[in-house]
Order: sequence, then structure tokens, then C-alpha cells
Amino acid sequence: MSRRRIITADDYFDGVRGQNVSMLARAFTLVESSSARHIPVAEELLTRLMPHTGGGLRIGITGAPGAGKSTFIEALGLLLVAKGLRVAVLAVDPSSGITGGSILGDKTRMGKLAAEQNAFIRPSPSAGTLGGVANKTREIMLVAEAAGYDVILVETVGVGQSETMVAEMTDCFLAIMLPGAGDELQGIKRGLLELVDVIAVNKADGANRKPALLAAQQYHNALDSISGSASDAAPAILTCSALQQEGIDDVWDAIEKRCQQSKENKRFEHRRRQQNLRWLWAIVEDRLRQTLHTHPGVQEICDDVETRVLAGEMPPAAGARQLFAALKLDHE
Amino acid sequence: MSRRRIITADDYFDGVRGQNVSMLARAFTLVESSSARHIPVAEELLTRLMPHTGGGLRIGITGAPGAGKSTFIEALGLLLVAKGLRVAVLAVDPSSGITGGSILGDKTRMGKLAAEQNAFIRPSPSAGTLGGVANKTREIMLVAEAAGYDVILVETVGVGQSETMVAEMTDCFLAIMLPGAGDELQGIKRGLLELVDVIAVNKADGANRKPALLAAQQYHNALDSISGSASDAAPAILTCSALQQEGIDDVWDAIEKRCQQSKENKRFEHRRRQQNLRWLWAIVEDRLRQTLHTHPGVQEICDDVETRVLAGEMPPAAGARQLFAALKLDHE
Repeated sequence: MSRRRIITADDYFDGVRGQNVSMLARAFTLVESSSARHIPVAEELLTRLMPHTGGGLRIGITGAPGAGKSTFIEALGLLLVAKGLRVAVLAVDPSSGITGGSILGDKTRMGKLAAEQNAFIRPSPSAGTLGGVANKTREIMLVAEAAGYDVILVETVGVGQSETMVAEMTDCFLAIMLPGAGDELQGIKRGLLELVDVIAVNKADGANRKPALLAAQQYHNALDSISGSASDAAPAILTCSALQQEGIDDVWDAIEKRCQQSKENKRFEHRRRQQNLRWLWAIVEDRLRQTLHTHPGVQEICDDVETRVLAGEMPPAAGARQLFAALKLDHE
Repeated sequence: MSRRRIITADDYFDGVRGQNVSMLARAFTLVESSSARHIPVAEELLTRLMPHTGGGLRIGITGAPGAGKSTFIEALGLLLVAKGLRVAVLAVDPSSGITGGSILGDKTRMGKLAAEQNAFIRPSPSAGTLGGVANKTREIMLVAEAAGYDVILVETVGVGQSETMVAEMTDCFLAIMLPGAGDELQGIKRGLLELVDVIAVNKADGANRKPALLAAQQYHNALDSISGSASDAAPAILTCSALQQEGIDDVWDAIEKRCQQSKENKRFEHRRRQQNLRWLWAIVEDRLRQTLHTHPGVQEICDDVETRVLAGEMPPAAGARQLFAALKLDHE
């Protein structure tokens, strides 16, 4: 393909549906782009791909720092590829925008999995806000499904909102935990426990085997103490060693069983539809945030308001009231 | 005070300025409230308190799960109280809204510090979004300053956006780290390193003393390898044991030295003003999000759009375009 030829939505569509890896990478870049030139093409592509999406199993994966998440994802990915499945690994990392990722960069991670023909690893979009990153990742996921990936692993970092966002775009949510007790439990919040479908205590090898079993037991106890009757089936809790490649198949079986059960009782489809509903509003909010700064009424006064807030002459709340009024939303 | 009497902004003002602990707690609750009845009173109170704010030293504190953050904050708080300072501990935890906090609840944490007359511990506001929680915490911080608290410790959880938000509302940002090497470094993101002014490797006691020193050395090396000429002075790196109450005074000295330096070169004031500017926009965005759902144009079509998205008849992106158009922002 000549460098000068403009790539149309048709080209992207054919490339994605034809499983052309190089065009797929370009389609991901297109969808992630915030350039005014790319957005209409990306929208057209996504609309055309939509009927071909939804066929993948969407698995969210979180884990404490040092829990061996990358090693686990690579081991799981290799297992799935060996089963004949096509695997895409995506990431939601709102901090990656600042400097381009963790100290241990994405390129050096998961080298074996990256070398597999049926695996595709994509680092986190670097769009500004967490909401923006999550929305882009949702779209990347749809493109990956349209390209025939069977399993989409969506990785997230740390605790808090980014975990909630990944849980809200996946069918099953897995937490990788460290062996060890007491202190570690501080790291797992009730909020996280409510998001999680499967807990895998990793590094259950050598001297850590016993602490891992103990940790698994403690998660059981913690779950028993907080799970009310309102909650669904309690999370499955397993131990594994990604390094020794032990127990990874059991974790995958637990995930598959979960998904099978929720398909049978219609919760699977229900969850996806509820996710679409939240996604709808997330897109509107994201677009609102973007429009705010280019709105003519806001632009007219924002220099003055900013100057006065910077000088300490106007409290932020008062300035905010003026900017908000300039949108004239209340008088519509 | 009779139960039936309505508490006015005047009452709140007098209570806060008069350091009446019970009225202060009520003022915090007022400021956190999202009820239409409370918002105008809270706005009036904040505007009146504004001239009396800014006198506190605002310290953000983050830490990996299990790093002993609560123990550290309690030890630091007790040290400051012993120096004759008044200390407020606030928290930004977006996940607390879901279930009311971590497994180890806020009430059982920091029992000794909570018992001190010159300390006030306030759990995280439980407002929905991270932005909402952060905005409320900023206001709580101002109320605490107006009530004469000398040091405001703002605690946050995990990595990612919540850390950025806390760094953006404080004068100095401290990270509590676990001793240990290699794996631990995975947990510290470049983004975090750029936010941090002081790193304290905690649990430097007994058998952990050596690993703690090693970890401190590794953070030094990591910083050397990534810090460009663009960055400010590199973070101070120390070891301590909150449990043994060793080295806490050194950490405080490092924080004070940082603040003193940045006051001398005017960065302190500059940072606060830049924070006010970002806060300004954060309030507008938060209010936009709230208004979105009550906007008449949106309300007119949102049932229909939601129904079609739920039924799988309309892609979320197409629905979002319709909802956004209903705001008529583009045609103002």
C-alpha cells in the first residue's frame, strides 16, 4: 500500500475482518486517535464493525503491585493459544498517559506471548482522563472482536475507579493476589470484592505454597464475613503459580464455568446490556468535557475568570459558577 | 442547641471558627451533602470561610497495600500533636462509596490519634465519582484550615488518578513504600514518581531493616535512570518504622524542608494557584455531569435512547450522539 493513499473506512473494515495484523494495528491507532480528521473515519468503521462484535469472551484482570500480573497473563495467554484460541491483551492504565507506562515497559513484557501469531498485545491508550482511556479501550475491544479474537484480556492497575471501569466492560473479573496474610487483606477493598468473580492467589510455589493457601483461606473468611444475601454467587478462590505454570488451567476453568453459568441464567446478556447503558452515558460525559473548553460562551469569559482565580482574587467555586452559567444549559 | 432549630450558615461559621468540634463535624457533613437544601448553605459557609483558609500545610500521603499507611499516619499525627500542632486526617477513596470503606474500617484505625483532642479524623466522602470525592475533600480541607488545623494529611489509596488528584490538592506528596526489591518496583509508576516529593520505605525494623535500605537504594537508582533535566529537585528518600516509631521525625523534617524550600523560591504559592485553576475546571465538569441527567432536552429523549440501547437496537456511540445533540451546546 502506497504511503500517500488515504486509508478509507472500507480499507480498515476489510483489514480488520480479513485478520490482517498490520491493518488491525492501524485500526487500533485510528480508534485511539483524537484528531478531527480521524474521528469520523473511526465512527464509520465502528458502526460497520458493530454487527460483527460481541463474540469474544471479555475477561478483566487486576492485581496488586508485585502480584505477578504480567507473568500470569502471559501464562494464561499461552495456555489459550495452545487451545487454539486467538487472544488479545488490552490495558487500562490512566497513568500511562503521563510518561508512557510503567518502569518495566510494555514492550519487554510478555515476550513469548507477543511472539505468538494468534496473540495481540496492545498497551493502554494514553488519552487524558480515566473515562477517556476506558472509552477508547471499549472501542479497541470491539475492533478486536470483529477481527475474530476469541478472548479479550483487559488488564488494569491498582485499586479504585480503573478497576470498576474494567469490571464494567468485561464479562468476568479476575483478581491476582499475593500470597501472605494480614497485611495483604488491607489491600483488598470491599468494593473490589464485589467486582470480582475469580480470585487467584499467585506465586503458590516453593516456600510460598503454604502462605498462598493461607491467604486463599483468609479471602474465603473475609468473603464469608461480608457477603450479604444480596450478592450473587461468591467469587471462586484458587491458588496458582504463573512462574511454574501450575494451576493456570484451573483458573481458566473457573472463569469458563462462571461465564457458562451466567449465560445459562441470562445474567451474561443482561450484564452486557447494562454495560452498554453505562457506556452510553460515559461517552456523553467525555464529549461534554471536551466541548466545555471550546464552547464560545465559555471562551469569551474564561481568560478573565482564570486570571482572577490565578491571582487569588476569585474563589474557584465562584469562577466555576460563572463558567457554568456561560454554557446557558439551565435556560434551554 | 434544640433539634428543631435550623442551623444557619452563621451558626456553622461561628462553630468552625470557634473550634467547636461538634459543629465542625456538622459543617463537614453539610459540605459533603448533595441535598438541594444544604448546597446553598454550604456555598455561603465556604465563601465566608475563604479568607480564613490557606494557613494549613497540606500533605498528601499514598502507599501500596500493606505498606502500613495507617500506622504511619497515626505515628506522624501523634508526633505533630506532641509538637503542639493541630492535625486533620482526610481521605480520598473513590471505592468507599460502594460499601462504606475498607475491611479494616476507619473507626478502628488510628485509635490513639483519634483520641487526641488536637486531632480530627474524617473518612472519605462517599460521593459517586472520583472527581466528586476530590472536590468534596478540597472543601473539607478548607473548612479544616478555617478551624485552625495546622497540618492537613490527605490520604489516598492505590495508584492512578486518585493519587494525581490528591497531589493536586496538597503542598507536598509523600509515598509510603514496602521494603523489598525487584517486584516492588513494578508497583511504582513513573507517573507516581513524578508526583512524589518524599518517599518513605516503611517497616525498616528487625529482619526488614536491610531489605528496606536496599529498596531505598533501588528507588534512588530508578529515579536516577528516569529523571530528566525537566524535573524539579528529585524526591527525598528515607527509611522508617512506623511500628517502632523510628525515623518518623526524619520524614517530617524532610517534608518541612521541602515546603520551606518551595516557599523560598515561590513555587509553593505558584503550585497552590495552579491547583485553584484546575479545581475551577473540576467543579465545572462535576456540575456538568450532574446537570446532564436533569436537562429537559436530554430527559425528553433519554428513555427512548436507553430502551433502544438496552434492547441492543442502537450502538451506545449513536445514542450518545443523540443525547449530546439534545443539550444544544453546539448551536449556542
